[in-house]
Amino acid sequence: MRLVPPKGETTEETVPSLSSSGAVFLFSGQENDAVRVYDTSGAWGDPSVHCDVREGLSALRREWITSRGDVEEYEGRTVKPEDNGYLTAGAEEFARVRDRGRLEEFPGLRRAPLRAKAERRVTQMHYARRGLITPEMEFIAIRENLGREAAFEALGDSDRDSLLHQHRGESFGASIPAFVTPEFVRDEVARGRAIIPANINHPESEPMIIGRNFLVKINANIGNSAVASSIEEEVEKMRLCSRWGADTVMDLSTGKNIHATREWIIRNSPVPIGTVPIYQALEKVGGKAEELTWEIYRDTILEQAEQGVDYFTIHAGVRLPYIPLTAKRTTGIVSRGGSIMAKWCLAHHEESFLYTRFREICEIMAAYDVSFSLGDGLRPGSIADANDEAQFAELETLGELTRIAWEHDCQVMIEGPGHVPMHLIKENMDRQLEVCEEAPFYTLGPLTTDIAPGYDHITSAIGAAMIGWFGTAMLCYVTPKEHLGLPNKKDVKDGVITYKLAAHAADLAKGHPGAQARDNALSKARFEFRWEDQFNLALDPEVAREYHDETLPQEGAKLAHFCSMCGPHFCSMKITQDVREYAAQKELDEQAALREGMKEKAAEFVAAGAEIYQGNLPEGVSREH
Amino acid sequence: MRLVPPKGETTEETVPSLSSSGAVFLFSGQENDAVRVYDTSGAWGDPSVHCDVREGLSALRREWITSRGDVEEYEGRTVKPEDNGYLTAGAEEFARVRDRGRLEEFPGLRRAPLRAKAERRVTQMHYARRGLITPEMEFIAIRENLGREAAFEALGDSDRDSLLHQHRGESFGASIPAFVTPEFVRDEVARGRAIIPANINHPESEPMIIGRNFLVKINANIGNSAVASSIEEEVEKMRLCSRWGADTVMDLSTGKNIHATREWIIRNSPVPIGTVPIYQALEKVGGKAEELTWEIYRDTILEQAEQGVDYFTIHAGVRLPYIPLTAKRTTGIVSRGGSIMAKWCLAHHEESFLYTRFREICEIMAAYDVSFSLGDGLRPGSIADANDEAQFAELETLGELTRIAWEHDCQVMIEGPGHVPMHLIKENMDRQLEVCEEAPFYTLGPLTTDIAPGYDHITSAIGAAMIGWFGTAMLCYVTPKEHLGLPNKKDVKDGVITYKLAAHAADLAKGHPGAQARDNALSKARFEFRWEDQFNLALDPEVAREYHDETLPQEGAKLAHFCSMCGPHFCSMKITQDVREYAAQKELDEQAALREGMKEKAAEFVAAGAEIYQGNLPEGVSREH
Repeated sequence: MRLVPPKGETTEETVPSLSSSGAVFLFSGQENDAVRVYDTSGAWGDPSVHCDVREGLSALRREWITSRGDVEEYEGRTVKPEDNGYLTAGAEEFARVRDRGRLEEFPGLRRAPLRAKAERRVTQMHYARRGLITPEMEFIAIRENLGREAAFEALGDSDRDSLLHQHRGESFGASIPAFVTPEFVRDEVARGRAIIPANINHPESEPMIIGRNFLVKINANIGNSAVASSIEEEVEKMRLCSRWGADTVMDLSTGKNIHATREWIIRNSPVPIGTVPIYQALEKVGGKAEELTWEIYRDTILEQAEQGVDYFTIHAGVRLPYIPLTAKRTTGIVSRGGSIMAKWCLAHHEESFLYTRFREICEIMAAYDVSFSLGDGLRPGSIADANDEAQFAELETLGELTRIAWEHDCQVMIEGPGHVPMHLIKENMDRQLEVCEEAPFYTLGPLTTDIAPGYDHITSAIGAAMIGWFGTAMLCYVTPKEHLGLPNKKDVKDGVITYKLAAHAADLAKGHPGAQARDNALSKARFEFRWEDQFNLALDPEVAREYHDETLPQEGAKLAHFCSMCGPHFCSMKITQDVREYAAQKELDEQAALREGMKEKAAEFVAAGAEIYQGNLPEGVSREH
Repeated sequence: MRLVPPKGETTEETVPSLSSSGAVFLFSGQENDAVRVYDTSGAWGDPSVHCDVREGLSALRREWITSRGDVEEYEGRTVKPEDNGYLTAGAEEFARVRDRGRLEEFPGLRRAPLRAKAERRVTQMHYARRGLITPEMEFIAIRENLGREAAFEALGDSDRDSLLHQHRGESFGASIPAFVTPEFVRDEVARGRAIIPANINHPESEPMIIGRNFLVKINANIGNSAVASSIEEEVEKMRLCSRWGADTVMDLSTGKNIHATREWIIRNSPVPIGTVPIYQALEKVGGKAEELTWEIYRDTILEQAEQGVDYFTIHAGVRLPYIPLTAKRTTGIVSRGGSIMAKWCLAHHEESFLYTRFREICEIMAAYDVSFSLGDGLRPGSIADANDEAQFAELETLGELTRIAWEHDCQVMIEGPGHVPMHLIKENMDRQLEVCEEAPFYTLGPLTTDIAPGYDHITSAIGAAMIGWFGTAMLCYVTPKEHLGLPNKKDVKDGVITYKLAAHAADLAKGHPGAQARDNALSKARFEFRWEDQFNLALDPEVAREYHDETLPQEGAKLAHFCSMCGPHFCSMKITQDVREYAAQKELDEQAALREGMKEKAAEFVAAGAEIYQGNLPEGVSREH
């Protein structure tokens, strides 16, 4: 929930909604409708709920999961030193580090893991295909609607375009309904067009959906590495991400303490968590890709499934015959997971275990409801390599794997590029929809030029907004530090806000019902000089307020009927008020003339009008307006 | 010119080009071609030239202008107190302020102004239509080519797509040539598809061109207001803008000292300067729009033409009958100039003098070669108001005025919106091209959502990149402070870099010849771990270096063959080297087999290959790659 409560002269009330629905009403003034915003912050954003990072969030979904009667508790895997990267020195070093307080294990409740009973599948897709509407789906229907249905009913009017004062969008063949019903959610999940990442061992998460016919979502990456950052910092980053609007968070840690960091993150995360298990597997073999084995990988995905990771990026499409296709590229293979698998394939001269063991992986995913995020290991890492043969060859394999996963009732999304110039973006979307039969697309950017390191949150937001418009279901953020270093907290926030605005621009262009309501409310507040409402309706009220105050710091300036840019007597908004009065007066005069049926008065008005409107009217413009 | 010289292990040499051509070679290493970048910093960026802000830049173009024999020196207007906004207290206050050192007049050379001799027109369009190729046009041809022609000739190869290793673009009907010749420049100016803003009284500026068939340009706004900033600050902002890549700068000052500030700016500016004269005119009548007169406006444009302003924004399309069309908008009239004129029209109940006196304005513009930037006074200020009747009615009038200006050989560009959701952007471009007969379009953003104040450089960069791709010739930047306050120096830089990357993304998507060269060079440097080259090829080398150093501050890290993100043994770029070796070896084996014609060896190779490539190949992928 928004942590900054609306205040100021026209702001009346904040109604914090049920924290579990993740939605909040913002009242923007006496005469102004409340605007409901999609909220990802969970209980952390609800002042009425006590949260402690050492206790973790409450297990909202636990009851829903167990009451389905298809899961069993069991004694999970024992955490080993190598799970945290202490391979060489082994258990002694691990204990030493822990004792010195450098690695604090999560002190809150440790539940025994859940898994599907024998011969059962516990995925949302499995339920959906059997016609079952789960509580997760009902929650999502409420969440995605943002109160639209209630608004419609209250007004008894079905003309949503005029009601919501919104441009008709261009959705390129998406099937976005006026209202999201639980049945619609079920149907989209059943046909594979949307996924609900919801591991049964992450009951703390609030259900959310990723699909082309729902609001465009964003993911934020965090994670420590061998060179920087601590557990505390990563947990704090996760909370920042969800506070500012990240719909999912990926923990891409590659350094020490991977297992312990992840435990802290998952236990405290109201949003689904994704990982790339091959990173941890590689740590378990001391960083030597060629020493990876199916057994180590399998052990790793079981470890993470038990912890509650909601989706895994799996680079199973990096096939041996595609690797030479990358040899003449400008930037070769830039995906970390992709290059690890390519190295393994070359070292062993055979197809990777991710590809050959894919059905076994599916069985594990189905037992915990971990969703697939099929990684694009051969994505282009430069404008030069965009849309090349290697990239599209891998996409074909991702389509093949999607169909196999669906045979196992596994939920699947597909990862996309990368670096792509604007005019080649749509081909990516069109091919993905076709090859992967509308499984949700999840893209990194794409970056629309290579020449702006330090500003790649922006080069990529351009591509992200466009591909989101074309049909991508979730946009993976890029921070200003991309290509240069690890993001700090400010970078994480900048990345999240940038991607929130890109996703929203996409929703507007698709014509997502109700999407324009917040724009309309903010612009109305701007026009009416309701500064506090303007700040509070912004994606980032803190920065909006701070920037305003830099020029006009006095509290009174926020009540002033002029902008900080033009000074008191130089304001276009103010002048427009005169225009409105004039037009209103004119309309009154017209109506009075007509109502009274007095020819003289009408003639007089026309004469007056003729005087007002000198010169010729251009074509197509009538005097009636 | 780039102020940060390339350095580091592979960077050999910097060749500062003629500062007057505004171009610079960057050598990026022994085996790597130099990359020539378009440079707007003029002599300020050339270490071999001494510059002093108190002296101004040298008058590069003076000789070209006078040698045409069609201009005369005359004694210009005397500067009056009201030119600097000292209306009320008059001359005494003005003198007092000056004497207290709060207003320092530009101390450098004051030239007598030039104007066209009687019955002459001195516009670049006038010359172009008469078949004359001016030195300005020749300069522009060299500048726009970025050394392409020399590169082509050296290689004797006309296949530019393979030579420049660039994707074919989609230009939506633009006519971009492989090389820019002086004759092409002349022809584009003659037909009104491009303009060269080049007031004969601004001989310090380096010629540049704005047109759909040239590189996409950007403009940066600066200017003091009643509430903030000093002359010194504005001059410094102008220099910052041109250093980081602004192609033109608009001085939008509205406070005191307008005339004096502008003098400092123009005398020091290597790029064309634009203004909105109605702002100063309004100051001359104490801020009361209804007291504006044609005489005051005429005096103001003469004053600014004598100083050397290169283009004027003139809101002559705000016609009386269009004003009521804005009454039901969400945000009414948001253009400052547009609202001033609307207020005047309402107060006087007649068409504005900008519209009724348009031909007289043309005569003045033609006598100094000031270009028109026909303002979109009725542009939408919110997503809700995008593409509405008021906006497109005004556009029709701008088309009508374009034709009138062309009758007077005046150069014209057309200003565009504003706030527009992505799916409605292209309609703006298509209509403008049609209605204004391909006169260059100059757009503000557009912003693709209203909900991100504090981040509107980004919401607008999305729209700017797209409309640039569709055909807009110049993008007016938006800073992070838009809607909130006046930009400081950091905001100005952020705005410029953001718009540089948007313009470049547009050039790439249009397939502008050679545009991809810099992306390719930067990506190659990235792949080869040439960190210094990567920084130097970036739009902002300072920030790129700073971000890298935050994670890995040691100097040695810039020689390291790994990224600061993944640590030493975890690098996808490194792994790809193995892939390349593998592929190279495979090709060698193949060629050896074929060359020796030994069946046994070939068979052996195939057998080995068959062992390498286990599994089935997917459709469309051959083993030859």
